[in-house]
Amino acid sequence: MQDNGKKPSFGDAIKFRINGKDLSGRFISSDGELAVIKLDSGYNISVPLDEIDIGEIRSNESRKEVEYNDTFGTGDKKILMLHTGGTIASRVDYLTGAVSPVRDIGFLRPGLRGLEKSITVQSRIIGNILSENMTPQDWINISNEIWKEIHNYDGIIVTHGTDTMTYTGSALSFMFEKLSVPIILTGSQRSSDRPSSDSFLNIGAAIRAALEDIGEVCISMHSDLSDESINIIRAVRARKMHTSRRNAIRSMGSGIVANVSGDHLTMHEHLSRNKESILKNKLEKRASLYYFSPVSDPEELISTLRDKKIAVIMATGLGHVAERIIGPIRELSESGVRVIITSQTINGMVDLDVYSTGRKMKSAGAISAQRILPEVALVKAMWVYANYPESEFTERFQENMRGENPGREIIEGS
Amino acid sequence: MQDNGKKPSFGDAIKFRINGKDLSGRFISSDGELAVIKLDSGYNISVPLDEIDIGEIRSNESRKEVEYNDTFGTGDKKILMLHTGGTIASRVDYLTGAVSPVRDIGFLRPGLRGLEKSITVQSRIIGNILSENMTPQDWINISNEIWKEIHNYDGIIVTHGTDTMTYTGSALSFMFEKLSVPIILTGSQRSSDRPSSDSFLNIGAAIRAALEDIGEVCISMHSDLSDESINIIRAVRARKMHTSRRNAIRSMGSGIVANVSGDHLTMHEHLSRNKESILKNKLEKRASLYYFSPVSDPEELISTLRDKKIAVIMATGLGHVAERIIGPIRELSESGVRVIITSQTINGMVDLDVYSTGRKMKSAGAISAQRILPEVALVKAMWVYANYPESEFTERFQENMRGENPGREIIEGS
Repeated sequence: MQDNGKKPSFGDAIKFRINGKDLSGRFISSDGELAVIKLDSGYNISVPLDEIDIGEIRSNESRKEVEYNDTFGTGDKKILMLHTGGTIASRVDYLTGAVSPVRDIGFLRPGLRGLEKSITVQSRIIGNILSENMTPQDWINISNEIWKEIHNYDGIIVTHGTDTMTYTGSALSFMFEKLSVPIILTGSQRSSDRPSSDSFLNIGAAIRAALEDIGEVCISMHSDLSDESINIIRAVRARKMHTSRRNAIRSMGSGIVANVSGDHLTMHEHLSRNKESILKNKLEKRASLYYFSPVSDPEELISTLRDKKIAVIMATGLGHVAERIIGPIRELSESGVRVIITSQTINGMVDLDVYSTGRKMKSAGAISAQRILPEVALVKAMWVYANYPESEFTERFQENMRGENPGREIIEGS
Repeated sequence: MQDNGKKPSFGDAIKFRINGKDLSGRFISSDGELAVIKLDSGYNISVPLDEIDIGEIRSNESRKEVEYNDTFGTGDKKILMLHTGGTIASRVDYLTGAVSPVRDIGFLRPGLRGLEKSITVQSRIIGNILSENMTPQDWINISNEIWKEIHNYDGIIVTHGTDTMTYTGSALSFMFEKLSVPIILTGSQRSSDRPSSDSFLNIGAAIRAALEDIGEVCISMHSDLSDESINIIRAVRARKMHTSRRNAIRSMGSGIVANVSGDHLTMHEHLSRNKESILKNKLEKRASLYYFSPVSDPEELISTLRDKKIAVIMATGLGHVAERIIGPIRELSESGVRVIITSQTINGMVDLDVYSTGRKMKSAGAISAQRILPEVALVKAMWVYANYPESEFTERFQENMRGENPGREIIEGS
């Protein structure tokens, strides 16, 4: 590197010349002899400092505001770890048995062991929110935090409480229309200071996945009750299916993007990284999720959903509600509420064409969510409504955008 | 039988003398040589007509109003089959592909094949209701129809649509505090006139189970995708877990009372028949089921649940809701609404003692449903509220009355 007074820092956009070729990218790190640069093509190169000639340097101003709580490792691959709160960032009080969130998450480092030389993790606490308290505004905030730094890293990990992790993961999945790096959410079912905590393995697997050629939002959690196998699950096909087990988050039918067993990662069907990331993070917040049951009351339904733009109904079986609820669906639809039908059975596919009930619901304006999971349908509808013209709503909602509405069930949970 | 002019009919209460012993029971049938009598002890005896001396005959008046749509077989064991509607009592229109209910259910007879000599099935249509239209009043009506005839049969089968079968099954399960005969609900995922229909095997297995020493309300449905194995599932541990597969109704964690594979029935842990049945079929209908999500609005929650006596909330994970929902829980509880917390994860156990969120909810008045499934919790709360003193509500609700709140998970679904 010619000493022309220009010293790039981490994250700066740079133009440079090497072996007679002009290239551009972002400066990642230098150990005094080698510089690591992330090329605009997405590849990282490692070049001797004295062989490159740096031209223009454009500082990454947003990046400079950031203060990290922790860094780890000296490797070339850069991982950003954003902590939002939840059990993984909590400690148990052994006197009361209570589990409380903490602000110091250095204790997560054991999950990174053995990776010191290949990665550098920069870790930042962006929230201290138990996942039951996450709101759509928090999904937007998290996407903005990621967006600020996405160009500087090879992969992004978000730690999050498991209760609503699939909502946040789905929101990020739709918001990032294209992804140049994987975003892997992870969490734990036991607080990280317990010897039995699942957090270290979940984090280790998240990091391995974050280094792969994945252009999707995924969740890294135990695949079974052993401490050996971690699934990397497409966020839009994941659901929390147990109150307390370490393998609580399951892929429903399809959606296992990778599996990490010990040091071995196996890739399954997935989307590769894109050249650039695209963020569209508007959300329509006038939305509601309604669980139909034999005690459902038509007037209650109308009064609850009247002021919404999105009403996702969890119906029975193939997507049925009682005859008495069909009038209200018509009334809501005609007044501009998008009424979306999902199924309480979770597995399978809503089909409003098989029985007379479904056909009546359809003609009243009900929109089938097909194979989209109920919680994912809520998030997707909020996102589609805010980001596409009204006339395209149904078509866009039913389009299989991120693997959330697969054509058929490849593998199926019970 | 001495010809003293007294001719008992099916279902009549009779006193009689045989071999010098005075006995009483209900007259079931006679083929001219042998009489079948159901003793008050619950056992059936088959005795030569000329050896018994019939005393008092008390006609079963309610029974005489009943007209059967179909009878089948000539055996001693008497099965009552009540049809409520649903796919099992539907036919497909091969021109339109539409599935519609029918009033003639004679086509279900293939499910009884091979049982002609051992059983007599009397079959009656008591409704033509698609299960999505079933209401708590229908549960009461079905229990009354069963009660009218329960003393005259060895087992009772109720055919029902699968969508809300577990609600109806749970309601019957609580309403019949004691059962002298099994009540087996069954249905199908394909209409009974399709060659691929699952109804015949489900009915055949229901009948085998109805002859066993079971004093519980169960559901007879395919255990897997083969046409070989049918599970008899405790209704209060069953849930519809797929929109369309024939094994859609699953036992959640525990609750398989028996399995029928081919002609072979294997019994598992179960309750035996009681000497007498007891019916308590009051229900509190001011009840609601509320699905918590990141878009849940505190004001909406209060306005929806204010006028109820029972509010069952499907919360996240161990039973958590957002901080903003805890105030409303206190407000509702203090105004007399029983606020019950279940989990969206379906599997596992609500525990409001682990995290600060749960403890706050508990002190606001929330009642943990522990291992009781959300839909079962709704039905049970409606029943407990109407049949026990208010002061006993929480204790009775959490008591494991019918296997709905097992102490631990014996077997566990994914």
